[in-house]
Amino acid sequence: MRMRNKPWAKEKMMEYPQYVIQNPEEHRGKWKELFEKEAPLHIEIGTGKGRFITEMAKAHPDTNFIGIELSDNVLVSALDRLIEAEVPNLKLLNVNAKNLPQYFEEGEVDRIYLNFSDPWPKTRHEKRRLTYKDFLALYESILKPNGEIHFKTDNQGLFEYSLVSFSHYGLLLNYVSLDLHNSGMEGNIMTEYEEKFSNKGNRIYRCEAQFPDGQRA
Amino acid sequence: MRMRNKPWAKEKMMEYPQYVIQNPEEHRGKWKELFEKEAPLHIEIGTGKGRFITEMAKAHPDTNFIGIELSDNVLVSALDRLIEAEVPNLKLLNVNAKNLPQYFEEGEVDRIYLNFSDPWPKTRHEKRRLTYKDFLALYESILKPNGEIHFKTDNQGLFEYSLVSFSHYGLLLNYVSLDLHNSGMEGNIMTEYEEKFSNKGNRIYRCEAQFPDGQRA
Repeated sequence: MRMRNKPWAKEKMMEYPQYVIQNPEEHRGKWKELFEKEAPLHIEIGTGKGRFITEMAKAHPDTNFIGIELSDNVLVSALDRLIEAEVPNLKLLNVNAKNLPQYFEEGEVDRIYLNFSDPWPKTRHEKRRLTYKDFLALYESILKPNGEIHFKTDNQGLFEYSLVSFSHYGLLLNYVSLDLHNSGMEGNIMTEYEEKFSNKGNRIYRCEAQFPDGQRA
Repeated sequence: MRMRNKPWAKEKMMEYPQYVIQNPEEHRGKWKELFEKEAPLHIEIGTGKGRFITEMAKAHPDTNFIGIELSDNVLVSALDRLIEAEVPNLKLLNVNAKNLPQYFEEGEVDRIYLNFSDPWPKTRHEKRRLTYKDFLALYESILKPNGEIHFKTDNQGLFEYSLVSFSHYGLLLNYVSLDLHNSGMEGNIMTEYEEKFSNKGNRIYRCEAQFPDGQRA
């Protein structure tokens, strides 16, 4: 996402420590204490400007949400949304997904959302795709047994790749839609990208994949 | 497929017993004796008018092929193709796929092709879809360990269903294309349906799914 640089972004986030959690490693294993309600925890990796996760938090008050975004430039827009929405069940983290296990304990997360992740189309960048096996291993290490990944993208190549990657990792495909907006799915909340690309006529792909029970790798 | 009734179809097939194999159960476990070369055996379930399997047999002389089709009305067109092609590595069977284990021994088949199978879109007809779990069990019972299903369709609903069905059966997805004709795949041989629907602008979906090693169900 091309955005102008916002040198004040970090500072603004520090002004709202109740929304953008500082020192998240200190909350590892006790995120539930930070929320008003004890509820399942859903996290979005690459939360961008935060429309999806904020609308989800509004629509599902009985779930706790955390939006994770590496770019402070981008996350500050999500913070603006959250300041306006004032929902108690959403927190933001300005961290790198590579370090997820530093912030979440094994089994602490109930569901992971990946929306319109960077496709990294070149083969030599495969390892950067958020559905690459090493990332799946990170997700497994923080999800409860049978935890799910809910994944949306308009990028055909990334979706094809991800179905194969999920399958080879041993994830179960519970749901696949090759044209989400004509699928009759109820309650879909669009991301900023989703609306933009869908308006361009792009199909939106979606799947739900579940980690298996039993021994962790 | 709507076709005029051909009361002479059965009779014609009996005139060419070297191509349309009569009493296939007698060849169970010894299909290799029927072919000139000892080679891997690939079968197509629902071979229709036979364009795919005949062209595959021409293009791959070191593979043996069997095309299976329930409708004699339709299979007689495949016979016409085969009479003209005169390839030694293709046989046809006018039988029901439900009875596959009567005709093939465990491990006798190396690969199964499913092309543009009837989508049976109504939920109450799920069991008739050729990618329903009971059919997958039949395929597993005649395929060698790690045998593959290669599946093409233009039907979005059937493809979505089949990916989930394959996954839940424990099949590994090795390859998925959501737009085969723009995928750069080399050597794709089109079926009659494929050409027709592709010309209408429909996308063609394709995947390769592999049965796991180890214990059979």
